[in-house]
Amino acid sequence: MPTLVLIRHGQSSWNLENRFTGWWDVNLTEQGEREAWAAGEAMKAAGLDFDLTFTSFQTRAIKTLNLALEAMGRLWLPTEKSWKLNERHYGGLTGLDKAETAALHGDDQVKIWRRSFDIPPPLPAEGSAYDLSKEERYKGIPIPQTESLKDTIARVLPYWNERIAPELTAGKRVLIAAHGNSLRALEKHLSNISDADITGLEIPTGQPIVYELDAELKPTDRYYLSERSRTHGGQEG
Amino acid sequence: MPTLVLIRHGQSSWNLENRFTGWWDVNLTEQGEREAWAAGEAMKAAGLDFDLTFTSFQTRAIKTLNLALEAMGRLWLPTEKSWKLNERHYGGLTGLDKAETAALHGDDQVKIWRRSFDIPPPLPAEGSAYDLSKEERYKGIPIPQTESLKDTIARVLPYWNERIAPELTAGKRVLIAAHGNSLRALEKHLSNISDADITGLEIPTGQPIVYELDAELKPTDRYYLSERSRTHGGQEG
Repeated sequence: MPTLVLIRHGQSSWNLENRFTGWWDVNLTEQGEREAWAAGEAMKAAGLDFDLTFTSFQTRAIKTLNLALEAMGRLWLPTEKSWKLNERHYGGLTGLDKAETAALHGDDQVKIWRRSFDIPPPLPAEGSAYDLSKEERYKGIPIPQTESLKDTIARVLPYWNERIAPELTAGKRVLIAAHGNSLRALEKHLSNISDADITGLEIPTGQPIVYELDAELKPTDRYYLSERSRTHGGQEG
Repeated sequence: MPTLVLIRHGQSSWNLENRFTGWWDVNLTEQGEREAWAAGEAMKAAGLDFDLTFTSFQTRAIKTLNLALEAMGRLWLPTEKSWKLNERHYGGLTGLDKAETAALHGDDQVKIWRRSFDIPPPLPAEGSAYDLSKEERYKGIPIPQTESLKDTIARVLPYWNERIAPELTAGKRVLIAAHGNSLRALEKHLSNISDADITGLEIPTGQPIVYELDAELKPTDRYYLSERSRTHGGQEG
């Protein structure tokens, strides 16, 4: 039975400040680091183990993975990093907090961007401080300027199909540390969630989500590890 | 010009206690973590950058790499981990400190093991606390029970030839975070050091060693980054 665990990065400094982050490379807060470590301890206590790990090109997800793996005694596991697992790109909203966004664009428009499936935020302003096109990290990569959730899914799913699904099918146990919207893309696909419903799926930071899959990678179970603390003492371990 | 940087892991808890460590997976000390971070800052200040990174299966080397990469803003770089870059396996000496080893085996014998090129330490005792053969990490891997430096070289060099050298030849800039003896293996090969001299080469912890190589991967220069602080402010950065 292939096992897949998804984990959204621990709290970042901009989660805390309630800013649109997207591709901007903010770090974990100390609480975020503790969440990541606790997630590793919980997975170990639950007897979960992995053969392969995947993460994005973004520090907050990579550090979450590294801290969880260290807590599990599994820092030596192979890790593949890909920009295709990055967070949704928030375009011209990047860096704005809730109040700034509402002041600039109005509450109703903000709600549309947050909740619509296929409407991307506006393009970044000319000369934006959050321009990533010159970054070494994204050299040679067709980076987006802004993304709807639909756009995000359109780059996450091919990566899933090409790099991750074949490993699961071959019996490998996989851990993915990524972001709210790249994980929504995976959950939508795995759990067959509608376009209308997926934008309402909230994925908490630092909480391992366990998928038990059949040979066709259809889920036979999906749960937050924190809700199944019976096995081996669960996350209290 | 291919650039290669080698870095021995920062101080580990058993470096501090002067114990034979080998394949035992001890962690970095706080000083070791600071050394790793400072190494990353120094590389960044010197304008060094990389396309690919390699490390061992051992926590102290992996963490050194991760901390240095984070300090450089390069945590997203690809990393390949291999047991072939592990430290020399000290067999039955694993876990013993200097005094214990001398009391058990005599100073002269200890000197022979430390300094000889091809005499391995004794095999681990039956039921040794340091037996790694049941570890998930080494499943399916023909792990050694004890190694001379010659034995270590015999597994490091094929890995160099198969996985690292082709990347350098293709123009990739490579960072390797590893261990005293796996790095001796590489330095012996690159700098053409004799069997007699290589055991005397001391490699300090957490100090980036820069190799500038020609197209045939022959060194045109080799230096500790800390000795060339003029470029971009060097390690004070």
